Amino acid sequence: MTGPEIETLIQLLAKLPGLGPRSARRAALDLLKKRETLLKPLAEALDLAAERIVTCTTCGNLDTIDPCSICAGAKRDVSQICVVEEVADLWAIERSAAFRGRYHVLGGVLSALDGVGPEDLSIARLVERASASEVKEIILAMNATVEGQTTAHYVTDRLAGTQVQVTRLAHGVPVGGELDYLDDGTLTAALRARRSV
Amino acid sequence: MTGPEIETLIQLLAKLPGLGPRSARRAALDLLKKRETLLKPLAEALDLAAERIVTCTTCGNLDTIDPCSICAGAKRDVSQICVVEEVADLWAIERSAAFRGRYHVLGGVLSALDGVGPEDLSIARLVERASASEVKEIILAMNATVEGQTTAHYVTDRLAGTQVQVTRLAHGVPVGGELDYLDDGTLTAALRARRSV
Repeated sequence: MTGPEIETLIQLLAKLPGLGPRSARRAALDLLKKRETLLKPLAEALDLAAERIVTCTTCGNLDTIDPCSICAGAKRDVSQICVVEEVADLWAIERSAAFRGRYHVLGGVLSALDGVGPEDLSIARLVERASASEVKEIILAMNATVEGQTTAHYVTDRLAGTQVQVTRLAHGVPVGGELDYLDDGTLTAALRARRSV
Repeated sequence: MTGPEIETLIQLLAKLPGLGPRSARRAALDLLKKRETLLKPLAEALDLAAERIVTCTTCGNLDTIDPCSICAGAKRDVSQICVVEEVADLWAIERSAAFRGRYHVLGGVLSALDGVGPEDLSIARLVERASASEVKEIILAMNATVEGQTTAHYVTDRLAGTQVQVTRLAHGVPVGGELDYLDDGTLTAALRARRSV
């Protein structure tokens, strides 16, 4: 019906998380309708990102410099390393502005189903970083999923030989959360971890 | 936190229909994670589309040639022109393979709210095409919305001076549709347009 150029564009857009085949078609048409304001700037932004953005060889964060601005930041606390699954989790914690230490991005979680083993994640590098004398605490901030917690257990075992203190995020009732809508696991965790007021 | 390159990419992705700020962030990270398989091919596909895809000056369809492959198609029936709002609607009718004539893309609908008047749509060009001796029928295939039907009425008036027959799509029960879930307007239209079996 139309040339292969549009089909290729639609198929690539459909690979983006959040876009299916139908919305990818709408997105492609929208791009072609807004050539100057959307299509060309997006093509340029992609080129620029491909050229400039690098993965930090220390922590796995994405930035235009290596080591990244967090690893190189003079105001960051070097005694704490927060371990996350993905860069998106690092960004989420940065948005909260509740942590001033440094990070370590594992690049995923252990998953027998998807064939992801310890060698596929940045665990050896974490153990190496944890062995540095200035590092006092490793905070495990994996997702509260089965895979995330399995990975956290494994990382804890691997860190047993080092001198660092290993901690994990608290489980409990989310701020603003209603008890009636919470799952039993979260309620149980929140009850067990109750604190005196 | 990160350079402006990622922020620009996220903001442009968030402008695509179907992607909000949150999913645009996920899409940007996914693109950076799959540089060779997704980011670079997408950048190339966008460049290629910007360079090759043109709007057909006859009907408004998108193609790599002008007139487009439908307008230039030797097997298409030149006596029928199907008028649609957008290229996406043209594609939808082409997928059904139920129409072998040619198309006319208006490029939108009349909307006082959005400030879209008759001169913003490809209506003058349609009247011009309808005046050609080989054209016998204009099929109005606008969406069954208030704006779509207002536009259909307006186009019908504008075509009054020509010799063509103006028809519109039938309203009725969608194939596979259950009566209990249909709105009253559709049921009324289906009842009024009932046919003997």
